[in-house]
Formats: sequence, C-alpha cells, structure tokens
Amino acid sequence: MNDYIEPVEMGKAYRLLNHGPTVLVSSRHGGTDNVMAAAWCCALDFSPPKLTVVIDKATKTRELVEQSGRFIIQVPTARQLQLTNDVGTISLEDDKDKLAKCGVKLFRMHDDDMPFVAGCAAWLSCKLVPEPHNQHTYDLFIGEITGAWADSRIFKNGHWLFEEAAPEWRSLHHVAGGHFYAIGEALTAKSRK
Amino acid sequence: MNDYIEPVEMGKAYRLLNHGPTVLVSSRHGGTDNVMAAAWCCALDFSPPKLTVVIDKATKTRELVEQSGRFIIQVPTARQLQLTNDVGTISLEDDKDKLAKCGVKLFRMHDDDMPFVAGCAAWLSCKLVPEPHNQHTYDLFIGEITGAWADSRIFKNGHWLFEEAAPEWRSLHHVAGGHFYAIGEALTAKSRK
Repeated sequence: MNDYIEPVEMGKAYRLLNHGPTVLVSSRHGGTDNVMAAAWCCALDFSPPKLTVVIDKATKTRELVEQSGRFIIQVPTARQLQLTNDVGTISLEDDKDKLAKCGVKLFRMHDDDMPFVAGCAAWLSCKLVPEPHNQHTYDLFIGEITGAWADSRIFKNGHWLFEEAAPEWRSLHHVAGGHFYAIGEALTAKSRK
Repeated sequence: MNDYIEPVEMGKAYRLLNHGPTVLVSSRHGGTDNVMAAAWCCALDFSPPKLTVVIDKATKTRELVEQSGRFIIQVPTARQLQLTNDVGTISLEDDKDKLAKCGVKLFRMHDDDMPFVAGCAAWLSCKLVPEPHNQHTYDLFIGEITGAWADSRIFKNGHWLFEEAAPEWRSLHHVAGGHFYAIGEALTAKSRK
C-alpha cells in the first residue's frame, strides 16, 4: 500500500459512494481472488454504514462473496478506465489469468486479509449482511462497511478533492458498453435551512 | 410537458440511472403531492427494469409511497441545483408551501396520473414492489419501472448527450450538505471481448 492511503472515519464512509461512482468489487475464498466492476452499487445507511451492490448469478464473484461473507468495494479512477472496463467484461471462469491480463495489482490493507486493488481512490471493506431472499430474487447484496480508506491526494478530511486534482483522479460513471463519464465540476447550492 | 420529451425504450431505461445521478422522488396520495431528493437510488435490473431507492421513515414521501404504491424518479440537471438541494432539505411536514417555495412545477405525462417535475432530464414511473422487510429494516424500496421518458436534448436513442449539450444540462451527483458535482467528460474504453 502507498503512503497516501488514510483511514476514513466511519460516519463519512458513505461520502465515498454518494456521488454514484462505478466501483470494483473484489473477493477472495479458498485461494481464489477475483475483481469485477459494478455500476449498481449504492450507499444504504450512515451508521453503521451499509451499502448495496448487485452481483449477478453468472459471476465468479457471486460464489466467492457467498462463501466468504466478505468483499471489498473500491472507487477506481480515470487512470483505471481500461482496467475497470476489462474486469467488467472478462470472466475469471473463462480466463484464469484475468487479473494479470487486466493489470490488476492486489495489496493487503493493514490487518485486513482481503484483496485490495492498488491505484484506486477509495476502499470499503464489507461484511455481508445475509439476506437470502434479496440475494436470490434480486441479486442484491447488502454489506456492512467495517473499514474505509482513501488516497489522501483525492479524498481528505471527509471531502473529495476532484476540483484540485489532475483529471486522471476523477471517478468513473459507467453508462453502457465501453462508455463512461468522469465526474465533473463542483457545484454548491445555497443553504435554505 | 414540453415537445422535447420522448419515451425511452424499457430495455434502456437503466441507462438513465447507470452513471449514478442524484434523483428527485415525487409521490402523490389523497390530494397531497411531494418531491424529495435522493442520492441513494440505483438501478437493480434490466428487464423488467427495476431500481432501488432509500426513503427515510421521517419523510412525508415515505407515507405517500407506502399508501399509493407508486412514485416517480427523475434526473434533475445543473439548472435545478438549488431546487434539488431545497426539496432535499425542506420537509412538507414543516412547510405546506414547500413545492412552491422550492420552485417545483409539476406536470402530467400523457395518461400517467402522477406528479412529474418539469425541467428534468429524465423521468421513470415506478410501481412499488412491496418488500416489507427491506422497507422496515433498511428504508429500502424497490420499484418496477413501468414508463421511462427523457428530454431528447440531453438523452436520445439510448445515449446521454452531456458532451454535446450546455453545462446546465449536466446531471447532479450529491456529496454532502450543499455540495454536488456535475457529471463530466466522456471516456471510452477499448473493447477486449
């Protein structure tokens, strides 16, 4: 891990997802690691912080998450555009070298023994909140966020720094196929309360 | 409704939400209309298209949605920054003139008798899929999308046109308080499949 990574306080972990970025989901079980992309990931609660993520039955990630009960959600950057697209289109079932071919480098975050993807803007370590009906009927998984970290060059003191950082740090927002938008300019509304 | 509004085919309705915009949720029951902002809204399925939205127990919207079993999700634009922030901070319970004070204008979409917010980029008419456990435990609501429309100046033929349109058309992505980001530049990954 790089020296810029800092913990994010639990009460502000939701801010890592609040603007709707496409994320990477990583998982590990029985010696197998995988990483997939997911546009359908969303904050669910502030405290304890929770999130939802849709994980299709056809994915290897689904099996690993159901077996281990854990997963990592990370916010990739524009620099990782191709990696994000590639892990979202290549299946580990079809290609055992998927992660190497996609240029994914994994690292360990302190004492958290899960596969974290290097080079992201933020990481959320999640414990699966088992909800078999949601998982089976909607492919909908709920995670309780047990640890959160961000690269302090792009998220610091509870705030994203997109407007100050280089464009390569922007979060990715998937539309369809290989088409994404980067997050754009900051806008501030007046307080009415 | 304005002449630029066109139906979006059901199979592409998810694209209106895929890039993670903050949305407006409108609802109507027993002569009461309300509109709130929600950053925690996410696509859930392609066909039939579904979405999730988190609606807190403290909101009037919650009551209206549970009573009517219907709601509208709309994608506001940068032009509606202040409106979006205001409907998200002022409660109808505290101020019966909320909608007028926030500058919300409602219209009827063809034969859909629900309150649609004028000036948005896109509208998704939803039927509540009752899931009492999710609603009670997580404030999590599932909607099946039964109709979708977009302003053809910003979404046409299944594609967002942010890169061609004026900045005031950009979608809003809420972070916290009055702080939002507009969606930014288009990025395209190479196909590897």
